[in-house]
Amino acid sequence: MWPKAGSFVTEQPRRILLGLGIDLMPTQIESAKAGVITPEMEQVAEGEHLSPELVRQEVARGRMVIPANRIHLQKGLRPIGIGLVCRTKINANLGKSALQSSVEEELEKVRCAIALGADTVMDLSTGKDLPSLRQLIIDSVQVPVGTVPIYEVAENLGDIAEMTPQYFLDVVERQAAQGVDYMTIHCALLREHLPLVERRTTGIVSRGGALIARWMAVHKAENPLYTHFDEICEIFRAYDVTWSLGDGLRPGSLADATDAAQLAELRVMGELTRRARQLGCQVMVEGPGHIPLDQIELNVKLQQLWCDEAPFYVLGPVVTDVAAGYDHIASAIGAALAAWYGASLLCYVTPREHLGLPTLEDVRAGVVAFKIAAHAADVARGRPGAQDWDNRMSRARFRFDWEEQFRLAIDPQTARRMWQEVARPGTTTSAQYCSMCGPKFCPMRISHTIQEGSSVDEPLATSADTAAPTTPASCPLQAGR
Amino acid sequence: MWPKAGSFVTEQPRRILLGLGIDLMPTQIESAKAGVITPEMEQVAEGEHLSPELVRQEVARGRMVIPANRIHLQKGLRPIGIGLVCRTKINANLGKSALQSSVEEELEKVRCAIALGADTVMDLSTGKDLPSLRQLIIDSVQVPVGTVPIYEVAENLGDIAEMTPQYFLDVVERQAAQGVDYMTIHCALLREHLPLVERRTTGIVSRGGALIARWMAVHKAENPLYTHFDEICEIFRAYDVTWSLGDGLRPGSLADATDAAQLAELRVMGELTRRARQLGCQVMVEGPGHIPLDQIELNVKLQQLWCDEAPFYVLGPVVTDVAAGYDHIASAIGAALAAWYGASLLCYVTPREHLGLPTLEDVRAGVVAFKIAAHAADVARGRPGAQDWDNRMSRARFRFDWEEQFRLAIDPQTARRMWQEVARPGTTTSAQYCSMCGPKFCPMRISHTIQEGSSVDEPLATSADTAAPTTPASCPLQAGR
Repeated sequence: MWPKAGSFVTEQPRRILLGLGIDLMPTQIESAKAGVITPEMEQVAEGEHLSPELVRQEVARGRMVIPANRIHLQKGLRPIGIGLVCRTKINANLGKSALQSSVEEELEKVRCAIALGADTVMDLSTGKDLPSLRQLIIDSVQVPVGTVPIYEVAENLGDIAEMTPQYFLDVVERQAAQGVDYMTIHCALLREHLPLVERRTTGIVSRGGALIARWMAVHKAENPLYTHFDEICEIFRAYDVTWSLGDGLRPGSLADATDAAQLAELRVMGELTRRARQLGCQVMVEGPGHIPLDQIELNVKLQQLWCDEAPFYVLGPVVTDVAAGYDHIASAIGAALAAWYGASLLCYVTPREHLGLPTLEDVRAGVVAFKIAAHAADVARGRPGAQDWDNRMSRARFRFDWEEQFRLAIDPQTARRMWQEVARPGTTTSAQYCSMCGPKFCPMRISHTIQEGSSVDEPLATSADTAAPTTPASCPLQAGR
Repeated sequence: MWPKAGSFVTEQPRRILLGLGIDLMPTQIESAKAGVITPEMEQVAEGEHLSPELVRQEVARGRMVIPANRIHLQKGLRPIGIGLVCRTKINANLGKSALQSSVEEELEKVRCAIALGADTVMDLSTGKDLPSLRQLIIDSVQVPVGTVPIYEVAENLGDIAEMTPQYFLDVVERQAAQGVDYMTIHCALLREHLPLVERRTTGIVSRGGALIARWMAVHKAENPLYTHFDEICEIFRAYDVTWSLGDGLRPGSLADATDAAQLAELRVMGELTRRARQLGCQVMVEGPGHIPLDQIELNVKLQQLWCDEAPFYVLGPVVTDVAAGYDHIASAIGAALAAWYGASLLCYVTPREHLGLPTLEDVRAGVVAFKIAAHAADVARGRPGAQDWDNRMSRARFRFDWEEQFRLAIDPQTARRMWQEVARPGTTTSAQYCSMCGPKFCPMRISHTIQEGSSVDEPLATSADTAAPTTPASCPLQAGR
């Protein structure tokens, strides 16, 4: 089933891979279909507490992807699974723009995002020196790295209309040879969709989508990424780059949500999902965007139906357009719902969305908001072990074990700081209350005295000023817990 | 149907109200049942774009409440409706604790919360001088003010076990005479429920619930707020204080969500809802707390069923226990869902929940998160006009009208600051891009050129450094929009 190297677009992948001592292996989905459990499937199975055979079945079916470029694997990538049976994953978009930030700043953001729990990162840089920043990121992280190759194409050309199909393929191949694990390419936006955009409130809000739309409008020709789909698949298959079919027509406003343009593109994404799988590639499908709460379930179900259960990779979605400055919250609401209904990878949105390039603090806020959304969905879906984390936290809370609460918090550093900032001076983490209620009004503290059957002869501390329950011995709690 | 004043617990309400020149009128629900549209119903109808007759019907049915103490009305309260047919409302909890904050700080928080859109505020202060702070708040705000009277009772006594029923009634009456619009009282937590708490992970996490549980445990007697329910109703009816039936057994962890203790209390809340309505009182019912995503719909539907559609007033709920430091986000997710499923009033949760008393910044973050949740639910429920706000914002976004975007943002000050912080020095609000993409990659900017049929002869600006689209004339956008 593995075609001769001659069927590649060029000989380059073969030369590069063999030069690095990497065998020309089947892709994950090809192995899975052939009944082979790869080492990467084994690792995913271990991390997800699933059987390797189940992972193999899910990859074969296309309902799970393992974005793992052979070259990044050689450099230490830790493979993860993205799909319906896996823990919900989150992605952090990073990268400088032509106007803002530097390589150092972006690398710091990458480190921060991963430390806080980002499962993948995308380098969406624009501006100068894109390949060198990309290589730095790939070489320094063990999580899958995604890109949108058309950004580099557009950066190199005066106008996207100057792009030739071969130029695009060359950029894709160079990025694949750098070790990029998955790529967003907007192949499903067709020329016939453009009239559907005209009636929209916010037109096209995908950078890649807008660039391709412009190319088609200028050339009065079909999307070259669609017409050259099979050749991109050949490159992807050589390195086992995973498709992230880009939704160039995702809605940029509630008014445009689930409209004709979006759904027309989604239909094409379904076709391309099947085609890519036939050609031995793993596929994810990208989704919106701006979607009101009541349309999120429909959007997930439609994508799962039309795209044969390919993992759904959603951007947000934000559930209102008015939350500029707080779009991490508006989108965490949408993301939690989307994941609960079946989305597998959540692309974070930061507080600075719609306003500018995120700072380090924005990255932190975005990652944490999406960790919350993903975990809430995992609990709701009853994923094995998901709620154990909550239960450990709650037990620590009830026994006033502050150190354990900080340790278990989604962002330990912030939790500790917030507790300290408002604690009475001199309060230690053995305090059996916090500054919200103080000792006299702490319900959990009172709760303990009820269980132990105290009477009026053993009153609670009567005033916050006289109570000094800073050691376990000073109040009748914790016994037997 | 309006009983003689002699049927009051004491003569005091009659004396106080008549002394202030306030007639002894029927309550809103009594008027509504008698077919009378009150001036307050007229005002609610106008604010909600509903007919006065519909408001009357909803109040009569108990599915809408208008928390408006006659005394606060005289002092300038602007009545609002809370219920299934109304815009979703949000509440901000404020108030100092024995350990933290001052009167001045709390008044500043109250002003900030209302300026950002809190529809009601609760003064949950503990510590000294509670009545004077409460009076300051009531006198200075035009939104409904809620309290939890047992906090003042507990503050005044050495141990809650010393409380007599009459002492509690006297505090309630004094607070009602101050103009409190709604009160949380934990009447539905019965002695028979206490064994159900013992198996819980986090016991009792409601301050009022814990205090009453302790009272029952010490006295080995039934909840005096349950046994004296009718007398509280008499006071409420005199001033038209609205019930907020407190859920003393709300779960404090996902592990305790929707458990036997919580549901046993909810059953009693249903009985008390019917009883209070018979006695001429308006009723809201409080709800959890900590609830996983997949149990929120069930919780709302059960409450609506068992409590005859009384407006559901939910605290959060948080959808995971591990978000300490970011519980405004974990709870905004739950709140958006709860409101979409039918909750009417959302009590905010701040980032400092579970860690300490919120600061002014925490109040801001909490209110904004809940405005987002409430508005997202209003859009999803298709409330008339709700999405107009989003549509105006999106149109402003597509025509690069930054000033209008800031003005329409949920928190204009923050939106403007975030835009400015990362804008290239010298950029004005007439810029046709932001620092996220820069001019060359701005999809909406490219979108405009497609619609206008540009060709390769009219290229886009080729570099962020040479492009200076700071005036509308410098790029071919906005025409005809």
